[in-house]
Amino acid sequence: MRPSKRAANQMRAVSLERGFSRHAEGSCLVRFGETHVLCTASLEERVPGWLKNTGKGWVTAEYGMLPRATGDRMRREAAAGKQSGRTQEIQRLIGRSLRAIVNLTALGERQITVDCDVIQADGGTRTAAITGAFVALSDCLSWMEERGMVKRNDVLKDHVAAISCGIYNGVPVLDLDYPEDSSADTDANFVMTGRGGIVEIQGTAEGEPFSEADLQSLMTLAKAGIGELVEKQKAALAG
Amino acid sequence: MRPSKRAANQMRAVSLERGFSRHAEGSCLVRFGETHVLCTASLEERVPGWLKNTGKGWVTAEYGMLPRATGDRMRREAAAGKQSGRTQEIQRLIGRSLRAIVNLTALGERQITVDCDVIQADGGTRTAAITGAFVALSDCLSWMEERGMVKRNDVLKDHVAAISCGIYNGVPVLDLDYPEDSSADTDANFVMTGRGGIVEIQGTAEGEPFSEADLQSLMTLAKAGIGELVEKQKAALAG
Amino acid sequence: MRPSKRAANQMRAVSLERGFSRHAEGSCLVRFGETHVLCTASLEERVPGWLKNTGKGWVTAEYGMLPRATGDRMRREAAAGKQSGRTQEIQRLIGRSLRAIVNLTALGERQITVDCDVIQADGGTRTAAITGAFVALSDCLSWMEERGMVKRNDVLKDHVAAISCGIYNGVPVLDLDYPEDSSADTDANFVMTGRGGIVEIQGTAEGEPFSEADLQSLMTLAKAGIGELVEKQKAALAG
Amino acid sequence: MRPSKRAANQMRAVSLERGFSRHAEGSCLVRFGETHVLCTASLEERVPGWLKNTGKGWVTAEYGMLPRATGDRMRREAAAGKQSGRTQEIQRLIGRSLRAIVNLTALGERQITVDCDVIQADGGTRTAAITGAFVALSDCLSWMEERGMVKRNDVLKDHVAAISCGIYNGVPVLDLDYPEDSSADTDANFVMTGRGGIVEIQGTAEGEPFSEADLQSLMTLAKAGIGELVEKQKAALAG
Amino acid sequence: MRPSKRAANQMRAVSLERGFSRHAEGSCLVRFGETHVLCTASLEERVPGWLKNTGKGWVTAEYGMLPRATGDRMRREAAAGKQSGRTQEIQRLIGRSLRAIVNLTALGERQITVDCDVIQADGGTRTAAITGAFVALSDCLSWMEERGMVKRNDVLKDHVAAISCGIYNGVPVLDLDYPEDSSADTDANFVMTGRGGIVEIQGTAEGEPFSEADLQSLMTLAKAGIGELVEKQKAALAG
Amino acid sequence: MRPSKRAANQMRAVSLERGFSRHAEGSCLVRFGETHVLCTASLEERVPGWLKNTGKGWVTAEYGMLPRATGDRMRREAAAGKQSGRTQEIQRLIGRSLRAIVNLTALGERQITVDCDVIQADGGTRTAAITGAFVALSDCLSWMEERGMVKRNDVLKDHVAAISCGIYNGVPVLDLDYPEDSSADTDANFVMTGRGGIVEIQGTAEGEPFSEADLQSLMTLAKAGIGELVEKQKAALAG
Repeated sequence: MRPSKRAANQMRAVSLERGFSRHAEGSCLVRFGETHVLCTASLEERVPGWLKNTGKGWVTAEYGMLPRATGDRMRREAAAGKQSGRTQEIQRLIGRSLRAIVNLTALGERQITVDCDVIQADGGTRTAAITGAFVALSDCLSWMEERGMVKRNDVLKDHVAAISCGIYNGVPVLDLDYPEDSSADTDANFVMTGRGGIVEIQGTAEGEPFSEADLQSLMTLAKAGIGELVEKQKAALAG
Repeated sequence: MRPSKRAANQMRAVSLERGFSRHAEGSCLVRFGETHVLCTASLEERVPGWLKNTGKGWVTAEYGMLPRATGDRMRREAAAGKQSGRTQEIQRLIGRSLRAIVNLTALGERQITVDCDVIQADGGTRTAAITGAFVALSDCLSWMEERGMVKRNDVLKDHVAAISCGIYNGVPVLDLDYPEDSSADTDANFVMTGRGGIVEIQGTAEGEPFSEADLQSLMTLAKAGIGELVEKQKAALAG
Repeated sequence: MRPSKRAANQMRAVSLERGFSRHAEGSCLVRFGETHVLCTASLEERVPGWLKNTGKGWVTAEYGMLPRATGDRMRREAAAGKQSGRTQEIQRLIGRSLRAIVNLTALGERQITVDCDVIQADGGTRTAAITGAFVALSDCLSWMEERGMVKRNDVLKDHVAAISCGIYNGVPVLDLDYPEDSSADTDANFVMTGRGGIVEIQGTAEGEPFSEADLQSLMTLAKAGIGELVEKQKAALAG
Repeated sequence: MRPSKRAANQMRAVSLERGFSRHAEGSCLVRFGETHVLCTASLEERVPGWLKNTGKGWVTAEYGMLPRATGDRMRREAAAGKQSGRTQEIQRLIGRSLRAIVNLTALGERQITVDCDVIQADGGTRTAAITGAFVALSDCLSWMEERGMVKRNDVLKDHVAAISCGIYNGVPVLDLDYPEDSSADTDANFVMTGRGGIVEIQGTAEGEPFSEADLQSLMTLAKAGIGELVEKQKAALAG
Repeated sequence: MRPSKRAANQMRAVSLERGFSRHAEGSCLVRFGETHVLCTASLEERVPGWLKNTGKGWVTAEYGMLPRATGDRMRREAAAGKQSGRTQEIQRLIGRSLRAIVNLTALGERQITVDCDVIQADGGTRTAAITGAFVALSDCLSWMEERGMVKRNDVLKDHVAAISCGIYNGVPVLDLDYPEDSSADTDANFVMTGRGGIVEIQGTAEGEPFSEADLQSLMTLAKAGIGELVEKQKAALAG
Repeated sequence: MRPSKRAANQMRAVSLERGFSRHAEGSCLVRFGETHVLCTASLEERVPGWLKNTGKGWVTAEYGMLPRATGDRMRREAAAGKQSGRTQEIQRLIGRSLRAIVNLTALGERQITVDCDVIQADGGTRTAAITGAFVALSDCLSWMEERGMVKRNDVLKDHVAAISCGIYNGVPVLDLDYPEDSSADTDANFVMTGRGGIVEIQGTAEGEPFSEADLQSLMTLAKAGIGELVEKQKAALAG
C-alpha cells in the first residue's frame, strides 16, 4: 500500500497552468500533486559563443528551489555562493531533454532559457519540471510564431515529458512522492517523447542492486505514465 | 494622470493569501497589483553565535527574485555566485523592519527566517515583501503558540507594513508601479507600525533634489496607505 | 550630556585635507573627529557598457575599511572573498549622492571612480566619505579643466555633503560618534546639496519607532550641519 | 567499422596497476586504452556531520582532469574557482557506485575518499574511474585489515565496475572511445556488481531518441563487458 | 645616474610614525620616500586550530593596497572577490619575517595579526611593510607588557628589517623606487635581523640572468641599508 | 647523516620521461626520487590582452597537486574554490623561470601554458617542476619547428633548471627530500641557466637566521647540482 493510497500505476493529480507569469514569452505552473514548479521560457536574441554565425540557436534550462520549498529550510544557493551538484545535474538534464525535441536550426540564432523554479516540493521535481518546461517552451514558440519569427511546428519535433518510477516495498510504482522517494529501493527517471522514443533514462539503486526484470517493470509503468502526461500537455495547449 | 489611471492616493489592489506553502510554519503570498511575493517563515532551534546563551532569539530575512520575475530575464544570483548589492540592501531592510516589532526575549533562543521571493515584479517588491512578511511571521508565531512555545502577542509588539511613494510628473503619488518607479523624480519607502510609529524611511532623489515640503507630502500619503495595509493584515489574520 | 561633551547641535572638528594622495587626479583626507576617510578620485577613459556611445559619462564610488580601523579587528573583505552587504549599501549611497550633483553629459564619455577608504573609524564614516568625496571629485574635475577636457562648473551642478543625526538619550543630536551611534534610539543620515535640496534621507529606528516630530527635529539639525560642511568644502577648495 | 577496428563487443585493452601511489592507503592506475585514471583511496578518522555517533562510516569520491588530459587544454578548475556541473555529476556517480557495494556499518565511523584524477582522456573516463576506484578501495580495506581495523570482506559486499555502450553508425558497440563518443547517437553508462545486479544506468539520446530494443542491446553488451572487467579486477587483486 | 639623483648606496628618506592608529595595540606609518604603508598590530586571544593547547602563539600578516595607491587605479581586491597571487606572496613573506624574530612560546596562546596597508606606492612596498610591521609588533608587545601579559623582550629575539636592491643601468643600487624597479635588470629583496642574520633573500632576474658577483654586490648594499633601518627602528622605539 | 643515506652533495635519482602525454605539444614526467611531476606544454594561438598586436608571445605556468600526492590527503583546490597562496607563488615562479630563457618576440603572438601537476610529492616539487617544464617547453617548440612556425633555437636562449639546498643538522646539503625539508634550518631554491646565470634565488630561514657564508655554501652546491640537471636535460632531449 502506498502512503498516498494510490494504485501502483497511478500518477498524482497533474495540472499544467499556462500563462502564470505575465512577463515571460511562455510560462507554465506545473503541479504533480503537492510538487509545484514554475517554468518560464525567456527568449534572447543571442547565442553562446560557440554557436555564433552558425545559424543555429540554443535551448537551455536553469533550476532552483525556494529555500522553504522543502520540509526543512535549505540554504539559499545565492547566499551560499554556488549551485549544488544536484542543482547542476538537474538543470543539465532538463536542457538536454528539451533539446532532444527541438530543431535548433529552425529556431535560428536565438536562445531560449527555461527557468524551472520549485515553489513547493514533494518528490519528482525534475520530472515535473521537464513536463512543464515543454509547455512553457511551446508557448514561447507560439509567441514567436505570432511575430513571424519561426513556425512553432518547425522547431518542435515532438512532445517530451518525464516521470519517475521506483520499487517501493518490493513493488514497482509510478510517480514517487517524497515519502516514497526517501525510502524506495530503486529510483528511476524516464524522459520520453510523444512518439515513445527514450530521451533519457537514469536508474539508481538506493539500496540493493536491481535486476533487468525490475528495469523492465519500471519502463512499462513509465511508458504508460508519459503517455498520460503527453495527453495532458496536448489538452493544456489546446485549451 | 498615472499610467494605471489610479488616483494619486490610491494603492493597487492588495491581497494577502495565507498558508500558500504547505511546509513553512507561516506563509503568505502578497500581491500589490502585479507584484507578487511569496513570504515563508521558517523556525529553527538555533541562533547566531553572538546570541548563544543570552536567552534572546533572532528574526532575519532573505530576499530573492525569480530570474524572469521581471520584463527582461535577469541573471540567476545562484548561478552568478553572489547576491547583488540591491538584494542585500533589501533583505537587510526587511529584517530590520520585522525586528522593530518583535520582542526577541519573548521569542526565546530560536531563529525565524522569513524568505521573500518575488514571483512577479511590477515595482514595490520590498514594500510588498515587508507587508507580507509580517503576516507570515505572525502565522509562524501562532504555530508556535499552538505548541506552547510562545505567546504570539508577547512576541509581536505591533503590526508593521511598508509602502512606497514618489513624485511622478510633479505630483506626489502612493504605491508606485514599475512604469512610475522608473520615471519618478523622487522615490521614498516608508516602513511604519500599526500605531503609526516610523520604523524606517528611505528617500532618494532620482533626478533633482527634493524639498522638505515634498517629503512632508509623501509622508502624508504613506501614513494613510500604511493604515490601509495594516487593516488588510488584520482582516487577513482574522480570516 | 553627550559622551564627547559636545552641544546637541555641535559637529565634531572637521578637516578636509586636499591632495593627500600623489597619484590620484583628486584626493581628500576627510576627518570628522576621530573618523578619518581617504577619498581619491580616479579618471578613466571608459564607461560602463550601457553608456557606450551615449556621450554620457559615469561617476561611481567604492568603499572599504582597513581591518583595524575599528575597535576590534574586522576580517579583511579581500580575504573573505566578498564585500559585505553594509559595504555595498554604503558605496551605492556615495555613488548616488555624487551623481545627484553631476551633469553626466558635460562630463563626456569617461568614468570617475571615487574610492573612500576608512583609515580610522569612530562613527559616521559614510557621511564623512560623501563630504570628502565631493572635494576629491571637484579636484579631479579641476585637473581635467586644466587639460581642457571639461569645464568643472559645467559638470558640477552644486555641492553635496552629508551628516548623521540621532536621538540619543531622548535628545536629538548632530553628528553621532561611535559611542552615541551604538546606543542611539534613532539614527538618520541626510545627504543634501549646497542649495539645501535633499538628495537622500535614511532614517532607522534602532529601538522604538520614531515620530514625524522626531524626524522634523533631526532634519532641522541636519540642515544646519550640512550648511557648515558646505562652507568648509568651499573654504578647502578655495585654499 | 569502428575507428579503432575493434569488434562491436570488444573492449579496449584494460589494465589495473595497483600501488601506483606510495602515500595512499590504496591506489590503482586504471587504463582503458588511452584513457588513464589515477585512483587513490584515502582513509580519514572522521565522518560527515550527519553520521557522527551513528557507528556508520562513509565512502565518497572526487573527480578531476588534468588541464591537458584532453585534445585541447581545458581551464583548470582550481583556477576557475569552481568545479563544473559535469565534474560534480561524475564524482557523485562514482561515490554512489562505491557505496552500493559497501557495508557502511562494518566500515565503522571513518571516511574513505577515493580521488579519481584523469591523467589522459580518450572517452569513458567515468567508467574507467569506477572500475579502478573499486580496486583502490579494496586495497585500502586490505590495508585496514592488516592493522586489525576491519575485515575487508565484511565491508565489501561485492565487486562493482562500469562500462559505456552506445549506438555508433546504427550499431550497438561496447566501450566507446572519444571519436565514437563524440559522434554516437546514443550513449549509455552501466554500473553493475559482480553478481550482475544493476547499480546505475544512465542512457542519453544525443540525437534521435532510442527505443527499448536499443536499450536492451546495449544492456546485453554491457553485461558481458562488466563481466570481463570484474574478472580483471579479481586477477589484479590476486596478483 | 639614478632618476632620484640618489647615490647608489643611498636610501630614500625613511620615517617611522608610531601610534598612527588609535584603536590598534601597536601601529606605525612607515614611509620610504613616497611609499607609505600603515602597519597595525592586532592582538586576539585565539590561535589557529593547529596550535590549540600547545601553549604557543602565532604571528601573521595581511597585506593590501588601496586601489589608487598606484599611478593607475587597480581593481579593489574585495570587489574582485580574491587576493591576487602577488598579495598572497607578500603577506606570507611579511609573516615569515616577523616570526623569524619572535619566540612563539613566550607569546603564549595568542595571535597577533599585523595588517600592512599601502596608502601610497612608489616601489618597495614589501620591504617598507616589514620594516614598519616590526615597530607595530614591538608596540603591541609593549602594550601587552604594560598589562602583565608578556615580557616584550622575551618575545622579541631581535630586530628585523628589509630593503630592496637592484642592478639599474648596470649599477648595483640600494632601495629601488618605482621608476628604477620597473626598468631594473635584477631585483632582490633582503630581510635581515639586527644582528645581521639573513632571514629571507629573494632575487629575480627581470631580464638577463645575474652572476654570483652581482648577488654579492647587492648583499653588501643591503647589509648596510638594513643596518641603517634597524637604527631608525631603535630611534623610533626610544622616542 | 641524511635520512636517505645520500652524500651531502648528492641529488636523488633524476629521470625525465618525454612524451608522457599523447595530447600535449610537449610533455615530460620528471622524477626527483619519489617526487613525480607531470609537465605538459600547450600551445594556443592567442595572447593575454596586454600583448595583442605587439608581435610578442607569452609563456606561463600553472601548478597543482593531486589531493593524495602527499602523506595526508589535502583538500582539492577545485573543490575549495581557490588556489592557495603557496600554489600561486609556485606557478608564478615557474612562469618567470621559463620566460627568463625565452625570446618572446621569436615566439610570435602565441601563448604556451606549461601545466605542472604533482602526481606524487616528496619535497622539491617546484624545482622538479621547473626542470621538467623546460623539457616540455623545448618539445613544444620542436613540434612548432616541425610545422614551420618557429625555430626552436631562436626562441630558447638557454637551458633552465632548479634545485633546492638547505642546512640540515648543521650541514649544507643538496636536493632536500620531504623528511629533510620539514626539519631543515634553512631552505633555499635556486633557478639557474645552462650558462650558470642566476635566474632566481629564494632563501628562507626556517629557524635561526643564516649567514652569508651559509648562503655561499648552498650556492656552491646548487651550481654543481644544476650543472648535472642541465646535462640530464640535454641527454633526454638528445634521446
